[in-house]
Amino acid sequence: MSIQDGPTVRRPRIPDVTIKRLPIYLRVLDRMREQGVDIVSSAELARQSGFTSEQIRKDLAYFGAFGTRGVGYSVAMLSDRIRRILGLHREVPAALVGAGHLGTALARYNLTRPQAVRIVAIFDADPDKVGSLIETVPISPMDAMEDIVREKGVRLAILTVPASVAQTVAERLVRAGVEAILNFAPAQLRLPPGVQVQPIDLSLELESLSYYVAGERVSG
Amino acid sequence: MSIQDGPTVRRPRIPDVTIKRLPIYLRVLDRMREQGVDIVSSAELARQSGFTSEQIRKDLAYFGAFGTRGVGYSVAMLSDRIRRILGLHREVPAALVGAGHLGTALARYNLTRPQAVRIVAIFDADPDKVGSLIETVPISPMDAMEDIVREKGVRLAILTVPASVAQTVAERLVRAGVEAILNFAPAQLRLPPGVQVQPIDLSLELESLSYYVAGERVSG
Repeated sequence: MSIQDGPTVRRPRIPDVTIKRLPIYLRVLDRMREQGVDIVSSAELARQSGFTSEQIRKDLAYFGAFGTRGVGYSVAMLSDRIRRILGLHREVPAALVGAGHLGTALARYNLTRPQAVRIVAIFDADPDKVGSLIETVPISPMDAMEDIVREKGVRLAILTVPASVAQTVAERLVRAGVEAILNFAPAQLRLPPGVQVQPIDLSLELESLSYYVAGERVSG
Repeated sequence: MSIQDGPTVRRPRIPDVTIKRLPIYLRVLDRMREQGVDIVSSAELARQSGFTSEQIRKDLAYFGAFGTRGVGYSVAMLSDRIRRILGLHREVPAALVGAGHLGTALARYNLTRPQAVRIVAIFDADPDKVGSLIETVPISPMDAMEDIVREKGVRLAILTVPASVAQTVAERLVRAGVEAILNFAPAQLRLPPGVQVQPIDLSLELESLSYYVAGERVSG
């Protein structure tokens, strides 16, 4: 099959920082759509998303959404476009590895709300946990990970394992086809280029927030 | 007391994006210090932190750390400096509100590791939870929140409450003296300027990661 025959749509190269803002725009747009709003200005999108109009216009221009001067953007068209860019127009299956307190909380959160990215498999190393359910999803053993990930076409994973095993688990996930990882383990993952890792580290977040309350303490 | 008499040190205005990187540099520097490294180049800091040398030199210059050309930065001086800028040279007391699965996981994580930002108070609306401990910290009732926050000098809070009550709880925290909030509730908080809010939203993170696995799915 030649490239011409394929149904694949060329997607624009969009900077990571823009990609991080798109779901926020999408949320605002979906809320407007529910409220029956047809057209939105970049100023109103700015007000509701917390970014500047300039930022928004620049972000949206990356994928050819320019709006109409003096009128604005079509809410329906823009939300459809962003949803498609993010691949959220269909369900995106995800795996969660590590069913401790944090993993359980995240899985429950994900499985009790309508979400485009859906946890379809959960893994844990503890034999006592294997076989029990979090909401509707059974906890599977670690040695079934590769098979289940391949079988379910999972390419996105949430890592809530201890730091000591994070690298090994991540490498196994990548070999099984995972291309993006939301990493809650306090460990820096070294993975092949092309694998997108988004770390979330509670300590780092708290340490940077400390700056904003440190004012009067500095001289202590 | 005149300004001259006061012990307050004027802190430089540093951009938020730089502040977010400082704890990462600090972690790398502390590890080097443990390993007995005295001097580090921006190239080595870049290699270990995952940022570029240019970015690092620019970030560090904000607070007057310029290094010595051809030599590098003093690991000890630089880590002390960053620690002081972030206010992490002493313990920073924090409150956690919402002792569900997520709150419990975060509190356990924080309380079982050496951390400069330390959870000293936990609150929950459920009377069945009040009085029980997470590690060493008792869960207190919501109506004691303002008093305990003031008494313990808490200015940093972690919000793990349901979205429906997040705004109200955040406003109460701010009135009691909180100046920075790590917000896990899927709600956009509207707070007075000067209050720093760092949102962490699982859905948004997953939705932006979906982009990186969406390639072949777009046209489907």
